[in-house]
Amino acid sequence: MVVELISVGTEILLGNIVNTNAAYLAEKCAALGLSCYYQDVVGDNEERLCETIRTALSRADILLISGGLGPTQDDLTKEAAAKVLGKPLVLHERSKAAIQEYFSARGLEITDNNWKQAMVPEGSIVLDNPNGTAPGMIIEKDGKYVVLMPGPPGELMPMFEASVIPYLGRLQDAVIFSQTVKICGVGESKAETMVKDLIDAQTNPTIATYAKTGEVHLRVTARGADEKEARKLVKPVVKELKGRFESHVYTTEDAVTLEKAVVDLLLANKLTVSTVESCTGGLLAARLINVPGVSEVFKAGYITYSNKAKRRLLGIKKNLLLKHGAVSREIAEAMAIGASVLSKADVTVSVTGIAGPDGGTPEKPVGLVYIGCYVCGNLTVKECRFQGSRAKIRESAVSSALALMRECILKYYSEMTFGNKEK
Amino acid sequence: MVVELISVGTEILLGNIVNTNAAYLAEKCAALGLSCYYQDVVGDNEERLCETIRTALSRADILLISGGLGPTQDDLTKEAAAKVLGKPLVLHERSKAAIQEYFSARGLEITDNNWKQAMVPEGSIVLDNPNGTAPGMIIEKDGKYVVLMPGPPGELMPMFEASVIPYLGRLQDAVIFSQTVKICGVGESKAETMVKDLIDAQTNPTIATYAKTGEVHLRVTARGADEKEARKLVKPVVKELKGRFESHVYTTEDAVTLEKAVVDLLLANKLTVSTVESCTGGLLAARLINVPGVSEVFKAGYITYSNKAKRRLLGIKKNLLLKHGAVSREIAEAMAIGASVLSKADVTVSVTGIAGPDGGTPEKPVGLVYIGCYVCGNLTVKECRFQGSRAKIRESAVSSALALMRECILKYYSEMTFGNKEK
Repeated sequence: MVVELISVGTEILLGNIVNTNAAYLAEKCAALGLSCYYQDVVGDNEERLCETIRTALSRADILLISGGLGPTQDDLTKEAAAKVLGKPLVLHERSKAAIQEYFSARGLEITDNNWKQAMVPEGSIVLDNPNGTAPGMIIEKDGKYVVLMPGPPGELMPMFEASVIPYLGRLQDAVIFSQTVKICGVGESKAETMVKDLIDAQTNPTIATYAKTGEVHLRVTARGADEKEARKLVKPVVKELKGRFESHVYTTEDAVTLEKAVVDLLLANKLTVSTVESCTGGLLAARLINVPGVSEVFKAGYITYSNKAKRRLLGIKKNLLLKHGAVSREIAEAMAIGASVLSKADVTVSVTGIAGPDGGTPEKPVGLVYIGCYVCGNLTVKECRFQGSRAKIRESAVSSALALMRECILKYYSEMTFGNKEK
Repeated sequence: MVVELISVGTEILLGNIVNTNAAYLAEKCAALGLSCYYQDVVGDNEERLCETIRTALSRADILLISGGLGPTQDDLTKEAAAKVLGKPLVLHERSKAAIQEYFSARGLEITDNNWKQAMVPEGSIVLDNPNGTAPGMIIEKDGKYVVLMPGPPGELMPMFEASVIPYLGRLQDAVIFSQTVKICGVGESKAETMVKDLIDAQTNPTIATYAKTGEVHLRVTARGADEKEARKLVKPVVKELKGRFESHVYTTEDAVTLEKAVVDLLLANKLTVSTVESCTGGLLAARLINVPGVSEVFKAGYITYSNKAKRRLLGIKKNLLLKHGAVSREIAEAMAIGASVLSKADVTVSVTGIAGPDGGTPEKPVGLVYIGCYVCGNLTVKECRFQGSRAKIRESAVSSALALMRECILKYYSEMTFGNKEK
């Protein structure tokens, strides 16, 4: 089936907000096996809204419309959809009660315009909104489905997952199941080359590659008569990918990020960690600290942006800085060792580099970054050359540091095991 | 004039990337005084691309089309535009030479498909692309203008600013001038209330409010016969806004961010700074370090996420942590003082809070954050209550810490001046 996304809101047309809802819904629809050929953005204007809905109905089976369900005069999405579909608006008692309850619980007064949110096109399936006052709606007509959802992502996303995905799943004669194999430490083009034969030969399941900063995600999607059949089709392909990418696969679970995989590895091995950053200035620590539960393993983070801080806090010798420069293999080493002495952590990661836009030379260009990783007495330093803006280079350095941490910890334990076997 | 944005790319339809180009172009168009009623996203499919261009031409004067100008078979934007506008593709010698040079400079071999990028619709104005191989194009026909730009933001943005904005400026019979008054330390709804009378009465110039995390931007836009006239209309309104928001206005320059304003204030007063973070875990330091030139003032950053790190690195007493808890006014104070002793910086900022999703209690709910700011012996602690996700709460805490730093530094100097006058 074909889906079309319509985002409603003058604030998107003015560039006041980035349309993250569209990216979210598009990714979910792809995972559901729905084809999407168009996304539209239109303002809070009834005539243009009606035209957009009419056009979308002429070329898609399912319309996902977000935004414009609020209580004000400007919110016209429901009115426009009702008009195009020829369904009058009627009062929905459960929504009226929910609005009453929402306001009472917060001790707020209900203004008259709030009741507008309890009106729905006749025959709608009403979707509860536990995070706001605007309910969602699904309206069916002539084999087409129009889904209306509130615009705020904190209301749209939970509603889509709780109510819309199960509904759309039932519409399809086949069940879609997908699993993502997440890889780090392998470049995008290399990863694509390594799976090209599988992609070229694919029918069901299909493999799609998604390049993220410092990572590649391979999504395997199968269509089956039921979930069991679809899962069965996905399984051998995931196994094949795991075999090809070996230890570069850090998870096959949607909810696991690279930083979570690293924190889980630290927790599993009872290792503590500290970070010492120059060009990334705290971004690496911030990403690790974004993982709930990290307090068990995170000892301390140091931001030594200036040479003075590198000398004073980490005890790096002035001569070493003068001889090699702050962005060098030697300083990345000295930073990791200095931080490990200071924090007594089992694992220490250091980052020093030239994020630009200035500061590059022919020998040490913008984008040159050294990452040091110290694991229980073993030190590894990696030289990286990144491209892009200052922000992009810093982000790439953080992802590479996480990948290097993972690699060094795994290597340490595999060598330890190997060493034991040798004896 | 009316503009319509068309973003081309299957990766947007699949939700692989967020369409930040559309938000960027939309904001720029609004500032240029162009009206935008629709944004479209379409994949790399010639038929659908042609249909989208035809529809957009029927309802807009200017089409800004981004993406699909690459060298592969999949890149079809130029071909589709040429077809709809009835202009054959011809070889553009300067672009051919630029492609040759781009590859030679990088020691790369040119494959045949790269020459496709030197073909342009007959009569096009060709826009140089110093950041890539795909040139941009402006094609005029029957009083309509079609602008083609490459999709990567690092290529699109510089091209739009260097070549497209001046061109669009010349098309308009009136000149648009806008200036943004950026405010921190005042909530969105309070800021809106404070300018409601101006907004209600506005015709030319107009005032638009943009809520950013921890900040509000007020954009004043005027239309005049020439730039001088437009500037003259903007000036008194900016002055009025500055009068109403006083020291909360941190800049009226587009290029100045809140972190840059803070770094500039530190530089101007020859003050050094250090940060000490718990729940923000390095994000505050990372934002300051995003400002080029910060190395002059940034002494060191400490990330003391665990209580142990707060005790060991900063010398905070165990009893103090037990008595008040890590998220408290007292610990924010102790962190700021500890970091100031350790780093000997003039200004020290501390952040401790509960970012969630877990860890909240009725007395100390998720979103409770204490920010400490120490300026040359004067200590201020602010209690904040933020809402939203873990990421949102951390981002709000960082913006508020920057605003508090600015406020405390300004206060310190105004009191010093006042004190001198008294004598």
